[in-house]
Amino acid sequence: MCGVFGIRNHPEAANLTYLGLHALQHRGQESAGVVSNEEGILHGVRRMGQVRKIFTRELLAQLPGSLSVGHVRYATSGGSLVRNIQPLWAQAQSGTVAIAHNGNFVNEDVLRARLEADGAIFSSMSDTEVVLQLMARSKATGIVEQLKDALSHVSGAYSMVLTTEDKLIAVRDPNGFRPLVLGKLKSPDNCWVVASETCAFDLIEAERVRDIEPGEILVIDNNGMTSHRLAKGVRRFCVFEHVYFARPDSVLDGLSVYDSRIAMGARLAQEHPVQADAVVPVPDSGVVAAMGYARQSGIPFEMGLIRNHYVGRTFIEPMDSIRHFGVKLKLNAVPGLMKGKRVVVVDDSIVRGTTSQKIVRLIRAAGATQVHIRIPSPPVSGPCHYGIDTPTRGELVAAKQSVASVKEAIEADSLGYLSVDGLREAVKARPDYAYCDACFTGNYPIPIDENRVSRKLRLVEV
Amino acid sequence: MCGVFGIRNHPEAANLTYLGLHALQHRGQESAGVVSNEEGILHGVRRMGQVRKIFTRELLAQLPGSLSVGHVRYATSGGSLVRNIQPLWAQAQSGTVAIAHNGNFVNEDVLRARLEADGAIFSSMSDTEVVLQLMARSKATGIVEQLKDALSHVSGAYSMVLTTEDKLIAVRDPNGFRPLVLGKLKSPDNCWVVASETCAFDLIEAERVRDIEPGEILVIDNNGMTSHRLAKGVRRFCVFEHVYFARPDSVLDGLSVYDSRIAMGARLAQEHPVQADAVVPVPDSGVVAAMGYARQSGIPFEMGLIRNHYVGRTFIEPMDSIRHFGVKLKLNAVPGLMKGKRVVVVDDSIVRGTTSQKIVRLIRAAGATQVHIRIPSPPVSGPCHYGIDTPTRGELVAAKQSVASVKEAIEADSLGYLSVDGLREAVKARPDYAYCDACFTGNYPIPIDENRVSRKLRLVEV
Amino acid sequence: MCGVFGIRNHPEAANLTYLGLHALQHRGQESAGVVSNEEGILHGVRRMGQVRKIFTRELLAQLPGSLSVGHVRYATSGGSLVRNIQPLWAQAQSGTVAIAHNGNFVNEDVLRARLEADGAIFSSMSDTEVVLQLMARSKATGIVEQLKDALSHVSGAYSMVLTTEDKLIAVRDPNGFRPLVLGKLKSPDNCWVVASETCAFDLIEAERVRDIEPGEILVIDNNGMTSHRLAKGVRRFCVFEHVYFARPDSVLDGLSVYDSRIAMGARLAQEHPVQADAVVPVPDSGVVAAMGYARQSGIPFEMGLIRNHYVGRTFIEPMDSIRHFGVKLKLNAVPGLMKGKRVVVVDDSIVRGTTSQKIVRLIRAAGATQVHIRIPSPPVSGPCHYGIDTPTRGELVAAKQSVASVKEAIEADSLGYLSVDGLREAVKARPDYAYCDACFTGNYPIPIDENRVSRKLRLVEV
Amino acid sequence: MCGVFGIRNHPEAANLTYLGLHALQHRGQESAGVVSNEEGILHGVRRMGQVRKIFTRELLAQLPGSLSVGHVRYATSGGSLVRNIQPLWAQAQSGTVAIAHNGNFVNEDVLRARLEADGAIFSSMSDTEVVLQLMARSKATGIVEQLKDALSHVSGAYSMVLTTEDKLIAVRDPNGFRPLVLGKLKSPDNCWVVASETCAFDLIEAERVRDIEPGEILVIDNNGMTSHRLAKGVRRFCVFEHVYFARPDSVLDGLSVYDSRIAMGARLAQEHPVQADAVVPVPDSGVVAAMGYARQSGIPFEMGLIRNHYVGRTFIEPMDSIRHFGVKLKLNAVPGLMKGKRVVVVDDSIVRGTTSQKIVRLIRAAGATQVHIRIPSPPVSGPCHYGIDTPTRGELVAAKQSVASVKEAIEADSLGYLSVDGLREAVKARPDYAYCDACFTGNYPIPIDENRVSRKLRLVEV
Repeated sequence: MCGVFGIRNHPEAANLTYLGLHALQHRGQESAGVVSNEEGILHGVRRMGQVRKIFTRELLAQLPGSLSVGHVRYATSGGSLVRNIQPLWAQAQSGTVAIAHNGNFVNEDVLRARLEADGAIFSSMSDTEVVLQLMARSKATGIVEQLKDALSHVSGAYSMVLTTEDKLIAVRDPNGFRPLVLGKLKSPDNCWVVASETCAFDLIEAERVRDIEPGEILVIDNNGMTSHRLAKGVRRFCVFEHVYFARPDSVLDGLSVYDSRIAMGARLAQEHPVQADAVVPVPDSGVVAAMGYARQSGIPFEMGLIRNHYVGRTFIEPMDSIRHFGVKLKLNAVPGLMKGKRVVVVDDSIVRGTTSQKIVRLIRAAGATQVHIRIPSPPVSGPCHYGIDTPTRGELVAAKQSVASVKEAIEADSLGYLSVDGLREAVKARPDYAYCDACFTGNYPIPIDENRVSRKLRLVEV
Repeated sequence: MCGVFGIRNHPEAANLTYLGLHALQHRGQESAGVVSNEEGILHGVRRMGQVRKIFTRELLAQLPGSLSVGHVRYATSGGSLVRNIQPLWAQAQSGTVAIAHNGNFVNEDVLRARLEADGAIFSSMSDTEVVLQLMARSKATGIVEQLKDALSHVSGAYSMVLTTEDKLIAVRDPNGFRPLVLGKLKSPDNCWVVASETCAFDLIEAERVRDIEPGEILVIDNNGMTSHRLAKGVRRFCVFEHVYFARPDSVLDGLSVYDSRIAMGARLAQEHPVQADAVVPVPDSGVVAAMGYARQSGIPFEMGLIRNHYVGRTFIEPMDSIRHFGVKLKLNAVPGLMKGKRVVVVDDSIVRGTTSQKIVRLIRAAGATQVHIRIPSPPVSGPCHYGIDTPTRGELVAAKQSVASVKEAIEADSLGYLSVDGLREAVKARPDYAYCDACFTGNYPIPIDENRVSRKLRLVEV
Repeated sequence: MCGVFGIRNHPEAANLTYLGLHALQHRGQESAGVVSNEEGILHGVRRMGQVRKIFTRELLAQLPGSLSVGHVRYATSGGSLVRNIQPLWAQAQSGTVAIAHNGNFVNEDVLRARLEADGAIFSSMSDTEVVLQLMARSKATGIVEQLKDALSHVSGAYSMVLTTEDKLIAVRDPNGFRPLVLGKLKSPDNCWVVASETCAFDLIEAERVRDIEPGEILVIDNNGMTSHRLAKGVRRFCVFEHVYFARPDSVLDGLSVYDSRIAMGARLAQEHPVQADAVVPVPDSGVVAAMGYARQSGIPFEMGLIRNHYVGRTFIEPMDSIRHFGVKLKLNAVPGLMKGKRVVVVDDSIVRGTTSQKIVRLIRAAGATQVHIRIPSPPVSGPCHYGIDTPTRGELVAAKQSVASVKEAIEADSLGYLSVDGLREAVKARPDYAYCDACFTGNYPIPIDENRVSRKLRLVEV
Repeated sequence: MCGVFGIRNHPEAANLTYLGLHALQHRGQESAGVVSNEEGILHGVRRMGQVRKIFTRELLAQLPGSLSVGHVRYATSGGSLVRNIQPLWAQAQSGTVAIAHNGNFVNEDVLRARLEADGAIFSSMSDTEVVLQLMARSKATGIVEQLKDALSHVSGAYSMVLTTEDKLIAVRDPNGFRPLVLGKLKSPDNCWVVASETCAFDLIEAERVRDIEPGEILVIDNNGMTSHRLAKGVRRFCVFEHVYFARPDSVLDGLSVYDSRIAMGARLAQEHPVQADAVVPVPDSGVVAAMGYARQSGIPFEMGLIRNHYVGRTFIEPMDSIRHFGVKLKLNAVPGLMKGKRVVVVDDSIVRGTTSQKIVRLIRAAGATQVHIRIPSPPVSGPCHYGIDTPTRGELVAAKQSVASVKEAIEADSLGYLSVDGLREAVKARPDYAYCDACFTGNYPIPIDENRVSRKLRLVEV
């Protein structure tokens, strides 16, 4: 759960990276970094926190050069946080390299063990450090061949942007799990950009050219743009990006997220119709699907829940007696609006079920006579191993309980999830397009040994 | 443009004030303060910044007592900012007093001059300091009579919450310009709360009891609740609270803001219909009125503009070459959605016109064939003198230009404002209810000499 | 325990004030403030912390004008700290005024009560607020007469520097308890400076002109310099400034502090001789007196205790088990140096006795066979009411115990204090000069009712 | 120019390391770090700034375990500062390791190039990273043998403290350039400490046991203490530690720094006598040698220059017009004391000469009739390559000019340096003891190619 950005041939490369990271901030708020490249010397700012808090005019002024890569990272549940801030960089025989990485290697442990046995030292938990070590040890000639060699050992999901001494390189794994798009600015000439989502292009007025293909290594340097191939895989783009993770104003592999969410909501209304008086989204993520549900069903759409955007992750619930306020700190019901009504609530997903129960109670307290929960995606029944930080299987309410039992737990009058087939139809922009829907179906494109105990980094930066 | 909060008889008074200020944060993000009262000794935290940034568990633990008042303040255009953070407090003959104040005195200059001539010293620009000085000089007996005496000299708009050594006092000016509501917690007994808006009650699970009446001084102490009267005025509640300022989930003098905005949008559709394919709000403030417009007109409602909530007021536009991105930092068009369509854009208001022009261009760049701007309120033609920090008359595009000329300036295909009558109808919850709409009509309930030069505080805290 | 500074007629008035406060930092490290005057508009920076931490180039750039006053304040034991940061300022009928104040009014309570009864409001504990209120209420004509009138009500110790709209004013109470000196820069013309100690002049290359006389009000404006008189008092300069408080490179009322400390040490050697092998000071404050002792006695002077200057007031003793390290965090004995020797230790004073005991033990642990403590001032037997924040009488070990008993408590082989007569001789630079030595003798020049309960400010800024 | 500390077998290992670093703070104020070891998991805090600013009770509480190492680092002239904060750590095949390092490898470039050619990646400029890489690649068995193997490739000066998963290891290079001492706490049992200087032991009440021998690897684990040997070198302890760098209360290889400085001052008086009235040190570093000079010469010792300890490295000289104040910000002359006198000034060294000139002028301005500069060490004529960050040869005034010419430049009446022979006599505690005095004599124990261009790290952390 990260966002990456790269740009080459712009006199304000770091500034535009900074802007691009703003647009990708929803993909990770824990830390951010920008590395600029001034004739092979890399200058980097990497800090904990959100983009707008980290970067000042003074800091950006210290990032010279016309090539730059950037990264935003999601909060993960633990580990040596400070050490993992990206882009990661190193100086090796073939020069300086910095990598911004979105994804997850499924064989990272094996690779680390092999590299350590061969004399490598590690100081982060990042997959990226493995790639850097593999590149430095490669016997191949040229940095691109070294990268190719390194990635031939790697199995998993990755969308990466690199700067070497003179190149901007974009890579996507053979399954194309995570998004990565190529764009271009109108001016200056040959100013290419790469980003996780197209919304980053809109902000800097770049045009989307095409997606980086699964298994593609795209190299941009003074000789222009050349495309290389990793071993071919089967296209398996993450459907969860459409369901929840990407911004509605992004276009993923050619399909508008907004459109796919409208379609999910509409299909949900067909699969789980209900007699009701209002369709109310849980803002912000449920809004578009709720509009789709309302349109298909003909039930009026109402913004019956208001979100307080001033409540951040750092909100302090100061004392025990008021800790139970929970979801009320973020959401409030519009008074009177739902009184005496049968309300359909559209939320993006149910994870543990506790929040859904609080929302049901909130809406009943606002006077609703019935509360029907509708989820525009199937029940999440398994963890993601390809880059999304889902809860463990034990925490997923849908992995343990039937839909009927979840309905009881959250105290709803009815509960309906979109079917897997319905979801596939909703996102079927191109007839042949294939997704990874392992978190819903258990069909993992790359096999995983869930019992394997992960090897922890034993260095804890405080 | 401030929010006030007060609570009495709760063991965690400061904590609940902190929560209440969270819900009122939209009324002011520049500074915030909480003063708690522990047997007549006042403990205060007042800082620049947003509520969630200022208050830590440690700070809140230093605010003991069962009575507390709080304040959030809007960014004003200049002046001695640090000095004006509220609640203001003082120690005087009759004991300690702290006041949280929302409003503006129109005769502040005259009062200051008179008080200075009588030996008073001032160290802030705040109206509140005038009230404190007038109270301290009053010959009346008892703090309530002193307050009444002090306010008898004052002319203008004010909703205030005070703590004296043992009382919580709520006051509203005789015209009732600014909102102020009384609520009550289920437990503990006699736990009364006062707030600018009801959304602050929802968060702490208090029930709205009634509005503080125009001209009322409500005193809550160990003897219970008593109501006093200032000189009677004519009810003139600020209609702009409904149009823009209040949260849609608040109820103002009994009327739901959400409902009034739906009605404004619907009336706007009747007054300014247009053949179009989509109604798109400028989020977040235009959403509810756009829904009203869409319903009335039958044109589909689309969330065609996505707002980036991570872009704050501190956003730095790092270099000149990218400064023109302007509105794109906050808003992005959903790609494809508006292509080839005739789009109705609903925005809450047009102030200088520059933002509206950028939005029109953004939507045309997204492929719209026509862009029709609809504003669910009349043109703002004059400044507010009763507590809202509007631009000067010279900056208001509608004060200088005709609607036709504004339409040209913002490059729209058409432009329609809600009429004054239409607005009055939309907010006519109670048949007899009267509003101040001076910023639209020029009918100022309390006469103003606009040529009077304001007396500036000559102390600049850096 | 504060330091004050003022300057007029310098284009970088605030910068020079900043430098002056650096030199006066030893007089107060808790907070600091600079107020500059640009044609009657006052600009101020007042913050908690040391001068070098507070002021940045950016802050100083926001303090325009050619007149400026500054203040450093000592840590006091409690109270509303934030509110008391100086210079204090206000806007009154006669314009803007800022005051930097060193001293203490003995009748502050009476004055506050009288002012409150007359309608004044207070928001600080500072004596300065009383002066500002008295000035604002004065019926006298002109700001100088108003100040004179205000001070005629005041009893106690004060050295003050004021800026009014166009004047720099320096005032010293009729007894002249606290120091205040006039100086002059070589250029520009008529650039006068006022400071608590001459060391502030040395840094900015100003020349000492003369002391502000006890009871003098010196006014510097465009008409030049004029001197006014308060009621005449008896000169009673604080002898403790020579003993401990002032810097050794300052000249107080014409007498070098370095010289007076050498003389104290020498007299101490005459009064309390001892057979010993080394004279060791407790650095830094005991160094000069120890040199005097060594010279007079002929015993070698050794820097046997080394002070760690990196240990500040914010030092955290992290866990209980290491809290007993106490004085070792600041002082360490030079190994070997005192082994087998009879050591005379010269420390500036004994307050509670606990530190002295630790020093005795430290020196014994370093191998000394005998430890003789010598104090170059008499036992402190009473609190100061004229501006020095001494411990209460109950905490003063010498107020309760005989010298013999203190000797036992601190585990010394012998203990000798300088006699009151000896001290008087040591500081007798001018034959007729008179000191306040109330803390040693109990002869308080202005009578004090110690049983009076101080009226506390009931406003606690957190 | 660093300080290192290590401790094993103490329940509050990190707290004691924190205290030890306080005592070593004079060896480096730029950054500090503590790594604690809790059963092989390393926990680290490494930050820019001084020890007392970095560590809070909360941070220290996050450093569990009974083994800990710490480091303070001196400000160097540039480079990737943030990345070089120590202790450095890594996870390798043989487990986790953290190293705190004081010194400098003269063949670091060659080693880096060789390691990079073998596939190593680097992200810091630190010598320590080279050691970690060499250890990880070693074919030797066991971590101690790997360390020995790694150091067999290294040439230069190093005193290091390491924690491996279960051992505390202390190492000193075969020449023993930099100090490293072994100590022991009385309780708990087997609680060993290692530090750069003995002053760190005094603070935590540990006893000095002995120096770590040149070429020794001392290993402390559950099996007790074992000593290993690197290739034997010739003892060449850095004489500059006695001259300037170490604290006067430290004992270096058995010789008290205080004693050696007294002796240097005394010899200086013999070599360069002068008729004068006062010996004045430049505080703090010149004080002890000045005492030696005064004793030998019989000229009175006076503290004629007072140092302002509140002026830190962050002092801002706010505007151009006052920048020339220079040395006056730190030093002030005691008024009157030197008037009409012939003054001998003892300063620890002359580097560029500009500061010495300012001091001469300051003392003349204070009225001295003659100013004689005496330096208790020989002229510094070459850079140090063994761990002290001296200016380049070009900046050293004594490398380019004769003593007569330096005397003219600094405007002194006479100038005398201690001779090399004199210095050797002064520090000759043990008859056979040998020093490195390359910076004075040019006799570099390990040959240096000064023309070699250093390989810069091309990663700049901002």
